[in-house]
Amino acid sequence: MFIKEDKMVKSEIRILGIDDSPFTRKDKKVLCIGTIYRGGNYIDGLISFEIDKDGDNATKNIIKSFKKTRHRNQLRYIMVDGLTLGGFNIIDIKKIYSKTKTPCIVVMRKKPKMKKFLKAIEKTSNPDKKKKIVEKAGKIQKTRINGKDIYLQLAGIDLEKTKKILKLTCIHSDIPDPLRVSHIIASGVKLGDSHGGA
Amino acid sequence: MFIKEDKMVKSEIRILGIDDSPFTRKDKKVLCIGTIYRGGNYIDGLISFEIDKDGDNATKNIIKSFKKTRHRNQLRYIMVDGLTLGGFNIIDIKKIYSKTKTPCIVVMRKKPKMKKFLKAIEKTSNPDKKKKIVEKAGKIQKTRINGKDIYLQLAGIDLEKTKKILKLTCIHSDIPDPLRVSHIIASGVKLGDSHGGA
Repeated sequence: MFIKEDKMVKSEIRILGIDDSPFTRKDKKVLCIGTIYRGGNYIDGLISFEIDKDGDNATKNIIKSFKKTRHRNQLRYIMVDGLTLGGFNIIDIKKIYSKTKTPCIVVMRKKPKMKKFLKAIEKTSNPDKKKKIVEKAGKIQKTRINGKDIYLQLAGIDLEKTKKILKLTCIHSDIPDPLRVSHIIASGVKLGDSHGGA
Repeated sequence: MFIKEDKMVKSEIRILGIDDSPFTRKDKKVLCIGTIYRGGNYIDGLISFEIDKDGDNATKNIIKSFKKTRHRNQLRYIMVDGLTLGGFNIIDIKKIYSKTKTPCIVVMRKKPKMKKFLKAIEKTSNPDKKKKIVEKAGKIQKTRINGKDIYLQLAGIDLEKTKKILKLTCIHSDIPDPLRVSHIIASGVKLGDSHGGA
């Protein structure tokens, strides 16, 4: 069977899944973990970096870490657990895509309450800049995986292809394994004992 | 077919695999990572703790972390990458077994050069205590996995059963996945980008 190259998802593709660690009111920095998966169930590598809590350097630090890792030439997709890391450090997925040439998929298990979210941003530093990044991320799309609704924001990739990647990586639950495991690692390193789920 | 319960290794058993992070001459503490695997290829949880470089608290801190994790009642085996962590912080596998009631498997990919090792211990604090722990760990046993020799020290488990656990966990290489992945995580967290292998 002939499959168009750009629609194909190889089972051995490398995917980077990024999540942040839990943090307290006192913390100024938040540890972020990026697990590098080969296909659905093989861990190939790991990156880590810090960002400012409620700051504005998540995008920059993701791009920096991506460009630094020895796996950069193999990485085909970037997944992030939600559009923010470390509180309100919002991710510019369009910028990440343009700087890394790698499609970026934001995965959310709940539909974000945008009004409440934008109101909370008002209380942070740089609220206008943050709001612009949220707008830039584009529309929230819904799909179902393993019987559950999940919500997505996409840069450099369409919904059809994203579904194939979710099918490949959601092998143990409705959470892609690169995100599920980055959550376990980030919480286990920060707290000494991991939390389940992502 | 009837299999005696104590010889059986279920494919869903939980295994804790411990490795340390790389460290520099300046470091006084060394981060250790314990990945909790369910069977051969599912990461269920993660513990982390620090030990003193060349110190004497690896055994105590492994036991403490084991007793603290929410996974403790499911954990069936403990694997450690070598008999030492953080330089010459030597692990008392008999004590770990007796305090946790969980068999402990030390995995080494090279046959340790005992003379050289014991000579190096002389230069650390508490050399006599350290040497006693090394002696207590018992004889080094050799087996083959995926075509390569590996060396083992065992507490609370025999070679026959250990081989079954190695067969279950060495799915991607000659290194059990709980150790391979703990190495990737420990180096990725410490250095920002992981090293391959364990």
